[in-house]
Amino acid sequence: MPQETAVIVGAGKGLSAALARRLAKEGFRIALVARDVEKLAPLVAETGARAIAADAQNPQAVEALFAEVDKAFGPPDLVVFNAAMRYRGPIEVLDPSDVMDAYAVGAFGGFLTAQAAARRMLGRGSGSIFFTGATASVKSMPHSVPFAMAKFALRALAQGLARELGPRGIHVAHFIIDGGIASSWATQGEAGPADKWLDPAAIAESYLAIHRQHRSAWTSEMELRPWVETF
Amino acid sequence: MPQETAVIVGAGKGLSAALARRLAKEGFRIALVARDVEKLAPLVAETGARAIAADAQNPQAVEALFAEVDKAFGPPDLVVFNAAMRYRGPIEVLDPSDVMDAYAVGAFGGFLTAQAAARRMLGRGSGSIFFTGATASVKSMPHSVPFAMAKFALRALAQGLARELGPRGIHVAHFIIDGGIASSWATQGEAGPADKWLDPAAIAESYLAIHRQHRSAWTSEMELRPWVETF
Amino acid sequence: MPQETAVIVGAGKGLSAALARRLAKEGFRIALVARDVEKLAPLVAETGARAIAADAQNPQAVEALFAEVDKAFGPPDLVVFNAAMRYRGPIEVLDPSDVMDAYAVGAFGGFLTAQAAARRMLGRGSGSIFFTGATASVKSMPHSVPFAMAKFALRALAQGLARELGPRGIHVAHFIIDGGIASSWATQGEAGPADKWLDPAAIAESYLAIHRQHRSAWTSEMELRPWVETF
Amino acid sequence: MPQETAVIVGAGKGLSAALARRLAKEGFRIALVARDVEKLAPLVAETGARAIAADAQNPQAVEALFAEVDKAFGPPDLVVFNAAMRYRGPIEVLDPSDVMDAYAVGAFGGFLTAQAAARRMLGRGSGSIFFTGATASVKSMPHSVPFAMAKFALRALAQGLARELGPRGIHVAHFIIDGGIASSWATQGEAGPADKWLDPAAIAESYLAIHRQHRSAWTSEMELRPWVETF
Repeated sequence: MPQETAVIVGAGKGLSAALARRLAKEGFRIALVARDVEKLAPLVAETGARAIAADAQNPQAVEALFAEVDKAFGPPDLVVFNAAMRYRGPIEVLDPSDVMDAYAVGAFGGFLTAQAAARRMLGRGSGSIFFTGATASVKSMPHSVPFAMAKFALRALAQGLARELGPRGIHVAHFIIDGGIASSWATQGEAGPADKWLDPAAIAESYLAIHRQHRSAWTSEMELRPWVETF
Repeated sequence: MPQETAVIVGAGKGLSAALARRLAKEGFRIALVARDVEKLAPLVAETGARAIAADAQNPQAVEALFAEVDKAFGPPDLVVFNAAMRYRGPIEVLDPSDVMDAYAVGAFGGFLTAQAAARRMLGRGSGSIFFTGATASVKSMPHSVPFAMAKFALRALAQGLARELGPRGIHVAHFIIDGGIASSWATQGEAGPADKWLDPAAIAESYLAIHRQHRSAWTSEMELRPWVETF
Repeated sequence: MPQETAVIVGAGKGLSAALARRLAKEGFRIALVARDVEKLAPLVAETGARAIAADAQNPQAVEALFAEVDKAFGPPDLVVFNAAMRYRGPIEVLDPSDVMDAYAVGAFGGFLTAQAAARRMLGRGSGSIFFTGATASVKSMPHSVPFAMAKFALRALAQGLARELGPRGIHVAHFIIDGGIASSWATQGEAGPADKWLDPAAIAESYLAIHRQHRSAWTSEMELRPWVETF
Repeated sequence: MPQETAVIVGAGKGLSAALARRLAKEGFRIALVARDVEKLAPLVAETGARAIAADAQNPQAVEALFAEVDKAFGPPDLVVFNAAMRYRGPIEVLDPSDVMDAYAVGAFGGFLTAQAAARRMLGRGSGSIFFTGATASVKSMPHSVPFAMAKFALRALAQGLARELGPRGIHVAHFIIDGGIASSWATQGEAGPADKWLDPAAIAESYLAIHRQHRSAWTSEMELRPWVETF
């Protein structure tokens, strides 16, 4: 298999880092995209990834980042969109600008990323576009309306594109991370088993398995949940 | 029962007009909100409604329109959000600004409307907030990503608020209009039975029935579909 | 409107009784079907209903009961299937015969009832067939597998028949009673508001509203839930 | 890793055979269970599996087959339930005994299999129990009520057990095979790409990936669908 290229948008310390490590081990060339890339220095050193600073809710910035990937690596084989912004509060006190921001970062940024990815993959008729969802992608809870609005919208994007791009050779999948991720939660001093939170390395393994699926039997949505979760 | 007040945001010729007629017959005082209120003149004449010009995606405009309702009628008993904007096209050619516009009109406007409504209803501990969805609220189809993103987000809003506001006495419901509405489609010359499209008067009847439900047995989501629909 | 006929299968004290009272008030002729009809005597006296003893999981018994309705009232306009049997326990100790019994009563009985109803309604091209579901119709919880298996199956029946019989003029609907019904639960001494449980009279009102829907805008599934429910 | 044991109930030519081949390659000891085991001779020869004749809807037969597996291999690590029976027809002509048979084979047999599997796995606190679903597990279509009733019920079983057994260390998953499987359909002379049907070997790969998931990030439901499927 020729060397593959992955672009991870919304790269941070948790899932994106684990994904970069797993894909690096698999031989991928990797571009890590974040607004602030300084924090990515250790991960870049570890995985040989290329860090690209870009704001995923800005159309020009997204085009520029994919142009940079084109130039450095050629068209991507796997694009993962992870960005999200969580605002909380009862309806009567939420700030409307936070609702708009949650959407811009978590859903509109996903649209821009998917559009740039699709434009590159359609020519070749192959590639994977993955979206990271959450429990809030399918269940909207009290005091979390801005986050759920963005996550539901991102799922609509994933589902529509799965139907639209599948028959054109592109594998679109949506992952519902249905629980807390170990690295992004304060897990010290917690009662219960050590693996009561989602291990980001375990999540990354499933992303890779879905990318490796043969197109005769593709999955378009997968939920991942700790064994002890009551759901 | 004292006279009730309804606010219909995103008022046009189809469902909103039928709703205004049905509520007028029931004795409601009605405010009809649209960007362009001139087109509403015949409906205003027929139902005695008050037309208010406002852009539902503008926070100040929404506050102003509800302040006008407060002054004219007092706090609303029923607020219905109907606005939507439909853009279509394959992912590779969609204009990002249309994706943002579809969200601003169809989902962010719903948030602003619901927030203004909730602030008024919470004091009294009663009232209904209804959202009009579509097939695209639960199924995202190819070439219709901007509309589905907004409709999924609106459903997240409705579902989160149903959980949040129900125990505080406010009935939040989401209606999935799963088919074409008679008055808004070119139905002339179509084959099949006369009632193969959704009759807006029939939809309005169901909205009223849900508003009349006793709070011990509330519905938070209802789908409406023509009998001949294959779904 | 000519006098209508309703058949309620699985009649007991709670929802079925409230439904019988509401339909009697609406002028319906009513047949109440249960294995043990003695307990129905007060309801029969109150509503003028006809009580018919039959075991809904027995094909011959179901045919005989509908033949009796034919003779007494003519073809039914509304048939409601309410029967269910709840068994609980962890998987490792459940008795297989209870799993089979839960299905026979709660799902197979629904099939037999629907088949007999459909055969009568198809000739006329109209009528409603309603199924009463529960939270377990859409969410299968630990230690409640036999009940959920039957309730999921009943929903499959309702959903398939809605698609199959709708275009032939028959309104099939499934009701998800998502909470405890006041009359069937020990509610005395409970904390919280008086209407924290579903009032069967309120449920009956919604069944009637769905039966009265115009066929251009039918609902095939409706959930009913107390306002205070966290869901 | 010590040698693992798999039990495949409802073994035939398509998915079960592919699964047996894939698991054999992975080093599993395999028991293949079917009512008629003669047809399995070539697969047994190829994979070294043990064929066991049993009717999965018979409680005693299921206990006996698992006792035979205990004796031959010890407690199973992976149990897959594949059996199903498809009956079709409009509601008014369906034979009630076919509705009962579809349930007995496709859902009650799944219960018996899961119960026997759980009893063996709970002692050790590990193992996987997988159920094979179909499009009809989540969408009930006209003229296919008996099959959908059984498939919905099987999904209720899977979902309830996932919640019940996950926290006790057992991975329960439900697979929605959303399309035709290549080997079980007449694919000769069909238009379209060669991989327009689900390749059973590709499905088997995903079953194995789910069995290999770390328990901190388990999937309880996965759908598999050909890339060209319009869904």
